[in-house]
Amino acid sequence: MREIFEAELRQVGDDLIAMSRQVESAVTRAGKALLEADLQLAQEVIASDHQIDASHRDLDERCVHLLAQQAPVATDLRIVVSALRMSATLERMGDLARHVAEVARGRYPAHAIAGAAEPTFAAMAQAANEVARQVTTLLASRDLELAEAVEKGDDRLDDLHQETFAAILGPEWSGTTQEAVDITLVGRYYERFGDHAVSIARRIVFLVTGDQFEKEQR
Amino acid sequence: MREIFEAELRQVGDDLIAMSRQVESAVTRAGKALLEADLQLAQEVIASDHQIDASHRDLDERCVHLLAQQAPVATDLRIVVSALRMSATLERMGDLARHVAEVARGRYPAHAIAGAAEPTFAAMAQAANEVARQVTTLLASRDLELAEAVEKGDDRLDDLHQETFAAILGPEWSGTTQEAVDITLVGRYYERFGDHAVSIARRIVFLVTGDQFEKEQR
Repeated sequence: MREIFEAELRQVGDDLIAMSRQVESAVTRAGKALLEADLQLAQEVIASDHQIDASHRDLDERCVHLLAQQAPVATDLRIVVSALRMSATLERMGDLARHVAEVARGRYPAHAIAGAAEPTFAAMAQAANEVARQVTTLLASRDLELAEAVEKGDDRLDDLHQETFAAILGPEWSGTTQEAVDITLVGRYYERFGDHAVSIARRIVFLVTGDQFEKEQR
Repeated sequence: MREIFEAELRQVGDDLIAMSRQVESAVTRAGKALLEADLQLAQEVIASDHQIDASHRDLDERCVHLLAQQAPVATDLRIVVSALRMSATLERMGDLARHVAEVARGRYPAHAIAGAAEPTFAAMAQAANEVARQVTTLLASRDLELAEAVEKGDDRLDDLHQETFAAILGPEWSGTTQEAVDITLVGRYYERFGDHAVSIARRIVFLVTGDQFEKEQR
């Protein structure tokens, strides 16, 4: 029984890592599509979001099945419930990557983000790619230093998000309202993406340190 | 054992209803604060969001405790897992109400939403209040007609959201960039609020019809 449970739990962990890789790929391609006004890439990201949704559903079913069949308690239960939540968070991160791609597609053949705002969004895209990569590695390694790196990446995204407002609300802004709207929305998508990455990082810290705490009590 | 379980499950249901009432109050007050530039009301909404967060944590703990102590299966398990998800969704709806209040506070003593956009946002606020109220009643009554009403309310929010873009991107728009940013953000908050209400409505439909399906199979 215990062996089956542990194999299933490993599978849940592997599914989360695979899902995180899908998100990493989506956000990286979405950022490239946005900055390079690459319509085909944008459409690929939009079309492949349903795969992330499917992974989310499969993972959830696996977790509910595990709860029903194995009735885990203590740390095991906490892991399964956390997996349910991380799966929902990753699904949402995939949606946000899709939203970025949708803005790129909506403005094609023009660049949605152009002019003075471009370097800020290039930096945001890079920061988002990095936190996505760190989340994948953190899920696999449970190396808590990565959790700290995710927090820092999110701080960076927040700072850049503030920069975008400073740019469009400053006296030198001469863009169109459509550009202001796009900057506002895409900035918000990236800012939320960072928040979700942090929520996953904190769940893993909680799981690892809670586990250590329990072992120390034995 | 079964009696204890059913009492605890009822408590989870009551907690969700109470949490939904908190959200309903927050979004209603946030909309009023936004439209009337009421600083005190905005601050009240912002300050009370931590109560919704606390309800969320308590409800989650109760659900995890229930899973650990009672190891529910089938419909019972589905109810507890759904409660975990609905609690997270309600918490997020509370955040969105707070975000609306934060915009109102940030522009005070000016109105964040003024001029031609005002009627659209008055309609959005009203639609959001209604779906919030319908979610509370749906959680209590499980009357599936209300689930349909929530879907319609969300459609209305989506239409109004599109209207906000039409207004700021139209040739008659003469507002400032700050106004365009606020309209973009608050429109997005209300649109997401509606999405979350729909996600709760669908979960309840799934629970009720799944339950009926199981009863019919017996």
